[in-house]
Formats: sequence, C-alpha cells, structure tokens
Amino acid sequence: MAPIIHVLNGPNLNRLGLREPGIYGAHTLKDVEALVTGHAAERGFDAICRQTNHEGDLVDWLHAADDSAGVILNAGAYTHTSIALQDAIRAISAPVVEVHISNVFAREAFRHHSYISPAARGVICGFGVQSYLLAVDALRALQPA
Amino acid sequence: MAPIIHVLNGPNLNRLGLREPGIYGAHTLKDVEALVTGHAAERGFDAICRQTNHEGDLVDWLHAADDSAGVILNAGAYTHTSIALQDAIRAISAPVVEVHISNVFAREAFRHHSYISPAARGVICGFGVQSYLLAVDALRALQPA
Amino acid sequence: MAPIIHVLNGPNLNRLGLREPGIYGAHTLKDVEALVTGHAAERGFDAICRQTNHEGDLVDWLHAADDSAGVILNAGAYTHTSIALQDAIRAISAPVVEVHISNVFAREAFRHHSYISPAARGVICGFGVQSYLLAVDALRALQPA
Amino acid sequence: MAPIIHVLNGPNLNRLGLREPGIYGAHTLKDVEALVTGHAAERGFDAICRQTNHEGDLVDWLHAADDSAGVILNAGAYTHTSIALQDAIRAISAPVVEVHISNVFAREAFRHHSYISPAARGVICGFGVQSYLLAVDALRALQPA
Amino acid sequence: MAPIIHVLNGPNLNRLGLREPGIYGAHTLKDVEALVTGHAAERGFDAICRQTNHEGDLVDWLHAADDSAGVILNAGAYTHTSIALQDAIRAISAPVVEVHISNVFAREAFRHHSYISPAARGVICGFGVQSYLLAVDALRALQPA
Amino acid sequence: MAPIIHVLNGPNLNRLGLREPGIYGAHTLKDVEALVTGHAAERGFDAICRQTNHEGDLVDWLHAADDSAGVILNAGAYTHTSIALQDAIRAISAPVVEVHISNVFAREAFRHHSYISPAARGVICGFGVQSYLLAVDALRALQPA
Amino acid sequence: MAPIIHVLNGPNLNRLGLREPGIYGAHTLKDVEALVTGHAAERGFDAICRQTNHEGDLVDWLHAADDSAGVILNAGAYTHTSIALQDAIRAISAPVVEVHISNVFAREAFRHHSYISPAARGVICGFGVQSYLLAVDALRALQPA
Amino acid sequence: MAPIIHVLNGPNLNRLGLREPGIYGAHTLKDVEALVTGHAAERGFDAICRQTNHEGDLVDWLHAADDSAGVILNAGAYTHTSIALQDAIRAISAPVVEVHISNVFAREAFRHHSYISPAARGVICGFGVQSYLLAVDALRALQPA
Amino acid sequence: MAPIIHVLNGPNLNRLGLREPGIYGAHTLKDVEALVTGHAAERGFDAICRQTNHEGDLVDWLHAADDSAGVILNAGAYTHTSIALQDAIRAISAPVVEVHISNVFAREAFRHHSYISPAARGVICGFGVQSYLLAVDALRALQPA
Amino acid sequence: MAPIIHVLNGPNLNRLGLREPGIYGAHTLKDVEALVTGHAAERGFDAICRQTNHEGDLVDWLHAADDSAGVILNAGAYTHTSIALQDAIRAISAPVVEVHISNVFAREAFRHHSYISPAARGVICGFGVQSYLLAVDALRALQPA
Amino acid sequence: MAPIIHVLNGPNLNRLGLREPGIYGAHTLKDVEALVTGHAAERGFDAICRQTNHEGDLVDWLHAADDSAGVILNAGAYTHTSIALQDAIRAISAPVVEVHISNVFAREAFRHHSYISPAARGVICGFGVQSYLLAVDALRALQPA
Amino acid sequence: MAPIIHVLNGPNLNRLGLREPGIYGAHTLKDVEALVTGHAAERGFDAICRQTNHEGDLVDWLHAADDSAGVILNAGAYTHTSIALQDAIRAISAPVVEVHISNVFAREAFRHHSYISPAARGVICGFGVQSYLLAVDALRALQPA
Repeated sequence: MAPIIHVLNGPNLNRLGLREPGIYGAHTLKDVEALVTGHAAERGFDAICRQTNHEGDLVDWLHAADDSAGVILNAGAYTHTSIALQDAIRAISAPVVEVHISNVFAREAFRHHSYISPAARGVICGFGVQSYLLAVDALRALQPA
Repeated sequence: MAPIIHVLNGPNLNRLGLREPGIYGAHTLKDVEALVTGHAAERGFDAICRQTNHEGDLVDWLHAADDSAGVILNAGAYTHTSIALQDAIRAISAPVVEVHISNVFAREAFRHHSYISPAARGVICGFGVQSYLLAVDALRALQPA
Repeated sequence: MAPIIHVLNGPNLNRLGLREPGIYGAHTLKDVEALVTGHAAERGFDAICRQTNHEGDLVDWLHAADDSAGVILNAGAYTHTSIALQDAIRAISAPVVEVHISNVFAREAFRHHSYISPAARGVICGFGVQSYLLAVDALRALQPA
Repeated sequence: MAPIIHVLNGPNLNRLGLREPGIYGAHTLKDVEALVTGHAAERGFDAICRQTNHEGDLVDWLHAADDSAGVILNAGAYTHTSIALQDAIRAISAPVVEVHISNVFAREAFRHHSYISPAARGVICGFGVQSYLLAVDALRALQPA
Repeated sequence: MAPIIHVLNGPNLNRLGLREPGIYGAHTLKDVEALVTGHAAERGFDAICRQTNHEGDLVDWLHAADDSAGVILNAGAYTHTSIALQDAIRAISAPVVEVHISNVFAREAFRHHSYISPAARGVICGFGVQSYLLAVDALRALQPA
Repeated sequence: MAPIIHVLNGPNLNRLGLREPGIYGAHTLKDVEALVTGHAAERGFDAICRQTNHEGDLVDWLHAADDSAGVILNAGAYTHTSIALQDAIRAISAPVVEVHISNVFAREAFRHHSYISPAARGVICGFGVQSYLLAVDALRALQPA
Repeated sequence: MAPIIHVLNGPNLNRLGLREPGIYGAHTLKDVEALVTGHAAERGFDAICRQTNHEGDLVDWLHAADDSAGVILNAGAYTHTSIALQDAIRAISAPVVEVHISNVFAREAFRHHSYISPAARGVICGFGVQSYLLAVDALRALQPA
Repeated sequence: MAPIIHVLNGPNLNRLGLREPGIYGAHTLKDVEALVTGHAAERGFDAICRQTNHEGDLVDWLHAADDSAGVILNAGAYTHTSIALQDAIRAISAPVVEVHISNVFAREAFRHHSYISPAARGVICGFGVQSYLLAVDALRALQPA
Repeated sequence: MAPIIHVLNGPNLNRLGLREPGIYGAHTLKDVEALVTGHAAERGFDAICRQTNHEGDLVDWLHAADDSAGVILNAGAYTHTSIALQDAIRAISAPVVEVHISNVFAREAFRHHSYISPAARGVICGFGVQSYLLAVDALRALQPA
Repeated sequence: MAPIIHVLNGPNLNRLGLREPGIYGAHTLKDVEALVTGHAAERGFDAICRQTNHEGDLVDWLHAADDSAGVILNAGAYTHTSIALQDAIRAISAPVVEVHISNVFAREAFRHHSYISPAARGVICGFGVQSYLLAVDALRALQPA
Repeated sequence: MAPIIHVLNGPNLNRLGLREPGIYGAHTLKDVEALVTGHAAERGFDAICRQTNHEGDLVDWLHAADDSAGVILNAGAYTHTSIALQDAIRAISAPVVEVHISNVFAREAFRHHSYISPAARGVICGFGVQSYLLAVDALRALQPA
Repeated sequence: MAPIIHVLNGPNLNRLGLREPGIYGAHTLKDVEALVTGHAAERGFDAICRQTNHEGDLVDWLHAADDSAGVILNAGAYTHTSIALQDAIRAISAPVVEVHISNVFAREAFRHHSYISPAARGVICGFGVQSYLLAVDALRALQPA
C-alpha cells in the first residue's frame, strides 16, 4: 500500500471558487483535491482529502494522521486563532506542512500571525493551488530515506 | 413562497432567560424566536431560527443561507474570537445583520471588538429582544426593490 | 403635545450628500431630517433636528434634551474622541441611541472605538439613512408603558 | 444517588501519555479518569468523565452540568482562546474548578492568560494528575453544609 | 483692587448636583462658585467664576487670565483629551492649579491621564468641593512675596 | 477677482510671539498674516486669514473654503487630536496644505502623530514663518494649468 | 523529627479577617495558621508559619527553607511585582506551591500576572483558607517516595 | 488627647534639601516635618512623622495608623511600584492623602502612574512643602462632624 | 538563451554550513547554489547566484533582475528590518519568492515579521535547502504560458 | 564659487518614473535632478545630486556635506529604519531638509515614523517633484544673512 | 586612609555558587568579595562589601556611600523593579557602576530593562566575577586627577 | 605573532571629537584607536582597528575575525537596528564585547535596546574611551588558559 498524505482543509475552503476569486482563484475545492491527489499519486502517495468548518474536526483528523507520511494543512481562519491546532501538531509524529492559497502576509494584519507555523515543519503560501502541490514535494523530501 | 430570513444564535444563547437576567433580560430563546418569527411574518418573511454552541455550525449555516433574503446573526462569544465567521459572511451573498441583546460596549473590554462587524452590513445592539426585531426591519429595507 | 425626540448630528454631517457618496450615500442632511421627522411623526413623536460642528454644542444640546423622550445621536468624528459626550449622556435621563450612517467597523481602525457607546442605550450603524429610522423605533420601544 | 462531579477534558488531552511526557507526564487519559473516579468515589461523588476536541461540546457539557455538585474543567488550549467557555461557566450554577496538568505559567506566554479563570471558583495547576484529585477535594469543600 | 483668581469649569460641570451624586456630591455649580468666591475673598482675592462646555472657550479664558493671580481649572473631560489646553497653560504666565472633585485615579482608565497636569503647577483631586478651596490656598502660597 | 487662499490658524496661535519664542519665534500672528498675505499677493492670490481656538470653527471654515484655490492649515494642538478636521478636509475639494512653525517631530511624542496629514495634500513644518510662505508656493504649483 | 513545611505569608495578610471579608473571608491569619498547622500535622509535617510585610524577609525565609519538605507561599501583592522572589525560589531546592485566598484572576488586571508562578511547582488559588490545605496535600504528593 | 495624623515619608526623602533642589526645593526633611507638625497643631492635630527607605515599613506604619485621624503619605518611588501599599491603604479605615513635593506628571513617564492613588482619598502634588500643609487641611475637612 | 532566475542570498548566508548546523543544516552556500543551479537547469532556467552582507547590494540586484523570470530571495536578517527591500520588490516586474532555510516562525519573535512578504508573490520556509528548490518550481509555475 | 547644496536620494529613487507612477509621479530621477539643479542655480546655489541604495553611502555623503549650504535628503525607506542617518545629521553643521515625493502619512503605518525628522530642520512632503524645489527655497531662507 | 569603594550586592547574591552555576558561575559571594577587595587594594582602594535581600537596605547603603570614591552595585532582581534605587543613585555624589555577573540581555525579557542604568555612570555585564574587577578599574579612571 | 583583537567602530564614529563632545567626549577616533592599540599591546595583543558607516562592512569584518582572540564592537546606531550583526556574532567563534562611549541607557528610548547584546559575551558602556580599554581587559580574561 502506498504511504498516505492527509490533505486537511479548514473553514470556508468548501466555498473555494464560488466567491472572491481575486483572492482565492477560480478552482473549486473539488478541483484542488483532484489536482493534489493526482500530483501525490505521481510521487507514490495516496492522498486523503477532507474539509471541515469545525476546529475540533481538524484536531481529530490530525490525531488520526499520527503515523501517516505527512499532513498538508490549510486551516483557513483557524490558522490565526487556534492554539488547539498547534498542540495537535505537536501531539503527532507525522510532519505537517502549512499551506495557504493566498499570500496571507499581504492581507489584513490579523492574518499575519499563525499559531500553526511554530509547530509545523514549514510554510508555503501565496501560490494558489500550486501551494498544495509544492507541499506534496516538500513532504516527499521529508520522508526518511 | 415567502423569502427566508435566517436567525442564527450562537453559544450560550440557549441559556437565555435562565441566568443573568440583569444583562440578558427575562425572555427565553424560545420567546425570542417566537417574537422574531411573528415580526418577520408580518413583514412577509419566513424566519428560520437555529441555535448552536459550535462555531463550525454557524459557519455551515451561513453557507446554507447564501441565497436567502438575509441573516440575523447573534454569534455570542464567537463574535469576539472568530475570524472563520468573518470569512463565512464574506463568502455568501445574503446580507448579514449583527445583533446583540446587551450593549456589548458597556461590558468587559474583550467584548468591544467584533470580528463580525467589518463583514456585516450593519450592527444593532443593546435593545434586548428588540434588537432582533429592528434587524428584521433593517433586512427588509435592504431588499432589492 | 407630542413627546419630543432630539436628532443631533455632529461634525461634517452638514456635508452629507455633497461628497464621498460611496461611504455616506446620496441623501443630504435636509433629506435625512425630513425622513426621520416624518417617521417619528407617524409614531407620535415630534422630532427636533439640529446639526453642529462644535463638540460643545452637542454637550449643550444633550443637556437640553434631559427630559425628552430620547436622543438620536450621530456625533460623527467626535464619537471617537469625546469623553465630554460620554459624560453628557450620563448626565441626563433621556435614553440616547448612537447611530452611524456607514458601518464604522469596516473603516479605519480609529473609527472602531466609540466613547459614546458605553453610555448609550444601544448602537445602530451601517444602514444609511435607515439607521435613523430604526433608532426612532428603538426609542419608541424604550418608552415607559 | 451520590452527587455528581463532571470531569471535562478538552482538546488533545486524549493524547495524554502518548507524546511530550516531559510536559504532561506518562499517564494516559484513561489512567487519569480512573484515578479521579476512584478519588471522587472515596469522597462520596460519582464522577462523569468526558473528553472532546470540540469547543462547542465543552459548552454543551457545562450546560448539562448545571445542577451537579461541580465541574473539574481542563479545557486545554481552549482555556486561552474561548470566551464561550467563560460565558458557559457564568451560565450555570455548579461550581467550576479550572485544572491544568502542567504549570501553564512556566510555558509560552500565550498560555499565561485564561478566559476561564475569572469565571471559575478557583484554579489548580502544575501538579500533574494530582491537580485533578486536589480539585475533587476543593469541590467537596465547596459543597453546602 | 484685589488680585483676581479665575475659576474655570469645563464640560458637564453645569450639571453638578443634578446627577450622579455618588461621584460628584450634592453641591450645584452655583454652590461651588459661592463657596470658592467666599473662601477667596477671605484670603484677599476676587474670584471670577465661569463654566463652559466648549474646549475653545477654556482656551480663550486661559489667555484672558494671563496676568491674573492664578487659575483654578477643572477642565472635566477635556482634561484627558485636550492638548490645546496644555498649550494654553504654557502660553500664559499666571499659575494654573488643576482640580477635580472626584478622585479621577479611582475611576475609568481613560481618566488617569491628564494633558493638563504637565503644564500645571500642581494637582488637587478627590476632595469634593474642598478641592477648589485647597486650590485657592495653594495659589495664595504661590504669590510672589 | 483673484483666486482665494484661506490661511487658517488654530488654538493658541493668537499667542504667537508672546510666549516661548525659543519654540515659535518672535513673530506675532499679525506679522505672520501680513507676510503670508503679501507673499500670496505677489503670486496672484487673495489671502483670507483667520484664527480660532475652537475646533468647530476650523471645521466650519474648511467647509467655507470648499471651492477656493486652497487652504493653508496650522491646526495647532488640534492637529494631534481632531478626527473631525480630517473628515472636513476630505469633505471639500480645495487642496489643503498642513503647516507647522516648529519641527513637531523634534518635540513631545504626542505631537508626532497628525490626524490631518493623511487627508492633506502635503506637509511643511519646521521653518518658522517661512513654512506658510512655502505653503503658498506649494498651493500655486497645485493649481490646474 | 517530622519533615518541615514553611508557610510564608506576605504583605497585608496580617490584616486577614479584619477588612474586606467579601474578598478575603472572615478567618484571621491566626486562624489560617492554626488550620494549616493541624492539617499538616495530620499528614506528618511540622508547619512553620511566618508573616511579613517586607519583600526582603520573604527572600530570606525562602533561602532558609532550602532543604525543607516544601514551602507554601502567599506573597500577597509582591506576587505581582517581585522578581527577587522568583529568583529566590529558583535558588532553593525545596518545592514551592503558590497559593492565594481569593481568585486573583477575577480581580484587577494587575493581579493577573505573577512573577512567582513560573518558578513555583504549581498554583492553587480561589478557595479561601482551603487553598492552604490543598497546598499541604500537593506538597505531600511531591515528596520523594 | 488630640487626634493624630501620621506623616509618612518614603525612600530618599531623608535626602530632601541635600540634592536636586531644582526638583525638590531647599527644605530638609526636618524642616518639612517641623512645618507640618506646626500646621497640624494649629488645627488641633498631633502629627507623628516618620521616614523610611523600606517598603515594608510603610506597610507596617499604615496598619499602625488604622484608627488615626488620617495619614499623609509621600511614598516616593514606591508610589509607582508598590501594590502592597495600595492593599495596605485598603486594609485600614483612616483616610489617606497622597502627596508629592514635585509635580510628578511633569517628570519621567514612569512617575505618572501611582498604585496609591486609586486607594487614597485624594492627591495633592506639585506645591513643594505646601503639599503637606494642604493635606493637613484636606484631612481636617474629612473628619466626621 | 534560457530565461534567468536570480538567487539572492543576504547577510551571513556565506557562513552556511560553518556554524549552527542545528538551525541551518550542513550544506555550505556553495552546495546550495550548486543544487539550485542544477534544479533550475533541469527546468530550463539559468540561475545567477549571488550573496552579500550589504542591504544596498540586495536592492541593486533586485533592480538588475527587473526583467528576469524571477527572483529567489533569502534576505536573511534584512527580511525583518528592511523596508528598502520591500520597495525594491515593488519597483520591479519579476516575481519574487521569499525563502528561508529554517522555520523562522519557530525562532525568536523578531524573526516572525517580514517586510518582504507583503511584496513577494509567496513564501516558502522551513525545508532547508529544499526551500530553494521548491521556489524554483514555484517560479516555473508563475511563468506566463 | 557658489555655495553648494547637496541633494541626496536614497534607496529605490533610481527607479523613479519607471514604476508606481500613481504614487511617485512620472518624472525620472534624472528629471528631478535637472529640475532641482536649475531651481537652485536660479537662487545662486550649485546643486550636487547623488543617489544610492546603500545606507552607509548616505551617512558618508552627509559627513561630506558638513560645511555646505545645506542638504536636501530623501532617504526613501531608510527614513523609517535608520538611526544612523539621524546621528549623521546631528554630526554635521549644514542644515538638512527632509523631503518626500509622496505624502508618506497617507500610506502604510510603517511610513509614518521618521528617524530623520527629529534631527532635520524641517520636513516637506507630498508635493511630488515640487517638494525638492520648495526645499531649495527653505534652505535659502535658512542661510545666515 | 585609602579612599573607599562600596561593593553592594542585592537579593539572592548570597546564594552565589550554590545554585544555577550555568548562569552565575561557581564562585561564592565570599570568593567574589575577596577577589574584588584584593583587586581594589592593589589599586589603592579600601573595599567595603555588603549584601542584602532588602531593597531598603540598598537605598540606605547608597546614601551612606555619598562621599566615597564610588559604588559597585549589583542590585540583582531589584535592578529591574526599583525606582527607589534610581532615585538613591541620583541623591548621592559618588559615581555608581552597575554590574551583573551574567549577560542579562541574553536572559528573560524582564531582565533587559534596568531602572538603575540611567542614573549610573556606566554598566558592565556578562563577564562573571570579572565584571566586578573591571568596575574597580572603571571607578579608578573616574577619580578626579 | 601576537594574538589579534579586532576593534570595529560603526556609523558616525569617524566624527568622534568633532561634534557633540558633551555626549561623546573630546577624543577623535584616531585618539581612541591609538589608546586602545597601546593598551592592547601592553597586554600582549595586536589590535586591528577599523571604522565604517556600512552595516554590511561590519558583518564582513566580524566574519573575518572568526578565529581571532576577540572583537571589541561599537556598532553605533546599528546596535539598535541590526539583526544582521547579531547573526554575524553568532556565526563566529571569537568572543565579542559590545562597547559604547556614552551611557546609552541615559539617552533616547530607542537606544535602550540592543540587538547585539544577546549574542555578545558582555557589555561595557558609559565610560568614554575607557570603555574600550576595559573591553581589552575583559577579552584578556576570556582567553583560554
């Protein structure tokens, strides 16, 4: 069986492509998940994609990804408010890559701080859907030889 | 069919009328919902009333109200902590009116800031149950001719 | 004689409709005063409308409204800088409703704080001229039975 | 029937004993719940133990504990971000004791502030599993004679 | 002719004795002015007492007091917001004593800072009407021999 | 008729030359107004010079200058506290040049922030009376060809 | 000889029971010391109780407790201002438990920060005299087997 | 026996008149104590004057003044750092008047905040030795009839 | 000729691999440049690699990269202090990708803010040398079709 | 020989006219230097114009301008970050006029503070190229008679 | 008689060498005092060494050192909290050198600010016991010729 | 060959002795370098003295001093703004002593924070040229035996 990557999307990302394309682009969440699944498959990973508007679900799902090959986490607005997610990342052994579609640092000040970043392995933001694909490559490079 | 208004109440508003009547008044949530439903009906709206203690439910329900005539949102404590709700309001086309039963600006400092206000059409607070009824009227005035 | 509502407008509101219609709408102050006077009359109130660019005038007029049925106060920029207005509201018995034409919480940070709100009964903002009309209804609901 | 104490554990506490034993010790959540249940039983209480990663669940469960003998609440990361929990504690009559396994004041600055403490009866932190047992004793002392 | 002391009272002090006696006492402004005039007369001063709700009037009157024996200034809420008053005190040669009826430091945080204090000779606060009488004595002690 | 420039001086500038010459120089306000009027006349402008200690007067006068060739505004202490002046500048079409006699940035910290600057066309400060003359030239350069 | 626990009380705790019973309860310091001594004796400890209004005494006494079974420290107001006490706790090997009679987090903001907590083993606050008794139990649990 | 006033001077006030006369004047502490004792005697009070450089002594002496006619407290630098003194004032029934020789508000920023003021009856500062004499008069006015 | 990517490294990156391998890894700058040049070549880019300890050089080199296919910028410590670099990025048309070897958000607080991020297209950090390689891929995806 | 004015331009001003004309206008640096040189010549000054992206060069050049008739300094982004420039201005005797093309106070918050202003004679900003010409006139007025 | 240097050590320095040698080294206070006494003697000074945990003692001892050749002051934790010590240094004529064993700037943020430094002649920190010896040499260089 | 000490002076120190002798003394940089070279030679060190106004040069020179006996660094204004210098100190093995001629803590607030101190071995400031000589002695004491 192929090693598994979890692709976890947080609040409002189910609305991707439906509103504010100037910020988030024209892809729907379905499009994104298809692209990242394909990209992961080419690199030998099975991608499990999930989305939720509930902070607690993201915590649950991070725990469930404990022994996986890695997590790609776009926690949306919870990025900026959730210490619970930071603790959840610290509570598992799988490497977590934080991604954002938009360049959060070019937006409102309250989006410049992330509770997730200090616990994540690394951060990739601003490249649209491409952020997810680069995160797959980053996780591949993080796999033990 | 009548146009629909969503009346969404957040955490602890299910306890309305049971505790701290000095701040929140003597009406129970049931009373409030009955009053606002009647007031809405007189103005030609169907009101759908829901309450939850889960932030994620409010996000879900805002999405579900996308094409409605409007939303009356009392997000309770999440008003002050939830960027996810701000994003959810921005992610739908229905106008959202933020309401509060008490005058939040006359209470603790952490209740003076709202993440919801910048994305809402307007704010009505401090008038007890009346805040909801005024919000119905505000939404009516916001309907396209 | 009908009970009296005072409608007090502060600095620069005499320029309403002349500049920045994107923020403040196309109504002139005269229009606003006519609308609110009519709306009040339908509900059995006489409305006394006044505008000034002087903070001290607003203090004087609040004192003068001591025994009236209520005050609708749009203090404009003094909302954010005037402790004297907070004290004046506390120094009278008439209920005061703070109104704003625009959604001040969606504008510059220095407009997010109001010295008036903690002393006012409630706040209504963001609904254009409609904010004043809703304030009349709020005051009506606040009248002793 | 014995009076009931609710033992509510928040996000990531289901991972207790699995990671970061230097901070949280070697006990699993199951161990903790067994110890506190036994300790409570010796003092004449039935302990109901629950854990969740969802803020809303904690709010729901606090409401459900309204008439109990007391609540021992370790809200984990929500301690520092949840105004909803403060309101929930204020909305019930049972006494609430805030506990922490680690000494939160010896950790990151964002763990030094608690939204729960002002509404709780008291706080016990830093004693590992023992914090829960001391909280049982504290609740016993708070029972009306 | 007797040397002159100016007693300048700022916004809302015309409401003295009418509201909030718990904070400001039961004396009306008229009472205060009579007491301070008598006290000053006993010490050989003519007292000129004036009150205004306009910041600009206080500036004007300070200028007019340039060559007097001194000024007793209770600027009310302008104490905390008016740099113009600080400049006006610096722009005259008469000594200025800042007074307050209540202990401003025991009230809201925004009343703890005074723009007037750094330019005044001294500050007397918290003694009710007595604050004015002590200020007369302070000015007497400040007169050149 | 020559195009008109309004020269508006705020609080305490009527005391110019009478006190603190180390900061403000030896010119009286009369001197300054004569110099700027002459300088303007040489460049084809009529200068209307006014001074007030009342914030509201400055707002009124800015409105009155709506269609003029420009405004030279030294708002004195109101520079640092008046949002009403910022709004007034935004509410007219004439270009406004903010001037200061002293270098405000070399003085107390509370003089470093100006509510006027963001709405003004530009700022000239620190050159004594010369600041006003340079402002005349700046306004001339801003006239439409 | 029984192992020794030091019970150190700081400034103003000698006034316990004499003033502000709403905050501190009706027990005098003598009562508290008798209760904690008895409670300690039942658990096999000798309690040495001391009170001082001098910060330096608390530092001296902590040093003197270096090799004891533990310290129960209620440093009163010095809790919030004394880095010297933090250093003193770090300079000894006995475990230190910080206690407070009242729930300091429900009081003024300047009582929310403790310089002692980061160096103490744990904190117990809000349970009145009971806080001390729980601290004895906490120390007992901290003794090496 | 005459009612007693305690005159308590804090750190460095024993150096009065020996250094920095530009700030503190030329009087020695002995001079000040003689003047205030005489002034008090003329008004029927016995004055007990004490000075210390120890914060704890001031706390002790405030307790000792519990039932006196009042306390004149110049806590020097401890004014700005001692919560223990605030608590001590709250722990006694005698009225406390805070005095300062210099105008602390015209000095360094860290001298603008006083932990004593919120608990004191009132504050008198900036009048040199005269501050103490005015405080005697203030206390006399505070005596029950 | 192949399109050109500029790889610009800022202060202290010439010390890569020589010190603090726990933070920056064991690769020397030479290694990094060889790896990124090879990776770029495989994707059809010529990489020009430069390093400097001078902020001004980075500004100069960004200008020189105006019409290139893109810039990979690791500005080291200047990331956190240089507004000049932000302006330089805004002053050119080539897309700029900000990279960091370490996860800057897991380090000192002063490394959490970047003046570069708001002007860059995106940010990649925390993946060691891999950060540069991912940046090449990001730039490739940003090329016009 | 004519007295010399140094016109020093800092980082990114070499890009003038090439990008962001909405902020900086359409003139190139060459244009600006030609205009200011001509304007200076008409007033009897030789202008030496230099531009650099290196903070250290600006320090060097300020030193070199020690005995000149004055310096016109547009330090670009270094305005907001360079204490070294403030010290350099203080270290020379020539008067320095700070200029900006755009109105920096109408831009990002980090451009509102200038380390240069407190040491400069005065500031001129917001008038485009005209800022430089006004600065020449300001320097002329500053020359000793 | 040899001129006298006072070596004053503050809170917890009596524990030197007993705990936390990683921060403070292995020397006991006795060792330090012997070393500095010897070093001073070689340079012609008598050293008087004292240690206390009481802030007030340090104030007393500074006063007592008024006419000495100088003071070497390691105020320990009081460095960061004691305005009284700043005033005491200002109240004497002997030069005071602030010393620290550890590099306080490499430790917790609350140790980065010193109330003593602005009043001291200079600061020496981070060199262990050597800091004291360098301070002796600094004082020698400060002696009048 | 003698071991080498690098004496690095930053921006504006080339102006030493030419301006502001009240702050920096009358010695020129040449004088300082001669004194420190002589002092170092007497202790068996060769001193290499360099000065620059460029931050990047200081970084370069620190790297070049990697294997020397130590660095005496007076980074002038860059002390307060340069994270690059902190990183450079961390990137070399030679011990670095931070020196300042003036007592920076007695000057403007922005000079109270040093980015260099946390990475330096120690700090010596306020003793004029003597600061450099003490730094030589400090480095000598830091040499391995």
